[in-house]
Amino acid sequence: MSDVDAIIAANAAFYAAFASGDFAALAGLWADEDTISCIHPGWPAIVGRAAVVGSWREILKNPARPQIVCAEPQAIVAADQARVLCLELVEGTPLAATNYFKRIDGAWRLVHHQSSPIAQFLGETDDPADPGRSVH
Amino acid sequence: MSDVDAIIAANAAFYAAFASGDFAALAGLWADEDTISCIHPGWPAIVGRAAVVGSWREILKNPARPQIVCAEPQAIVAADQARVLCLELVEGTPLAATNYFKRIDGAWRLVHHQSSPIAQFLGETDDPADPGRSVH
Repeated sequence: MSDVDAIIAANAAFYAAFASGDFAALAGLWADEDTISCIHPGWPAIVGRAAVVGSWREILKNPARPQIVCAEPQAIVAADQARVLCLELVEGTPLAATNYFKRIDGAWRLVHHQSSPIAQFLGETDDPADPGRSVH
Repeated sequence: MSDVDAIIAANAAFYAAFASGDFAALAGLWADEDTISCIHPGWPAIVGRAAVVGSWREILKNPARPQIVCAEPQAIVAADQARVLCLELVEGTPLAATNYFKRIDGAWRLVHHQSSPIAQFLGETDDPADPGRSVH
């Protein structure tokens, strides 16, 4: 399996663990390091294994959590580190997510996750100067 | 200068270039690689040197762009790659940002930026199970 295939598979396993509510699988995907970090949508950054894994434990406890579908994953690899850019479709609403992985003992483990809402515009545009876009 | 000091300095240079509208300085901080990527607040991901640097060129052209103050930068280093977690205070409103750097020829260059709005709650809480938080 190529690095890219392995990273995309690890990324898919992350969303599969979320979908099935499998906390042990999800926790096992995160690196066992105290520098792991996570920025959930609307949250400030949290850092540290206990804080990050604990946040996912609480989220998975919520039976009303939405389903999330990962779409268009794109892996960018640099040596033993990689990031996956993807869309998260949260009950149809797209978020822009980045999942950072580090190769540890041959396995790609999560070290950072950040998911951001994508603003919806009546007139779709790719023009970054469009005043409908955030100016930063 | 330690790695952490150098990374924090590169991160500060990024925000200084933005504040002064210095496009050349800002463009020079980004790695000269076609895998660089950026998720501006409310945007989908953009990938590639032309797209990412071009987006900053357009943003800097806007004389009405807000001032951004970087606060509480925290560098997490792993070999020749690093991320800085920080707050961006955009005219007082905090965003949660991650800036990824790669050491290239001895200099820390940006390879990814993502900035996310932080939801404001009437009742501040650190409880991730709080229904006021996003469930993911």
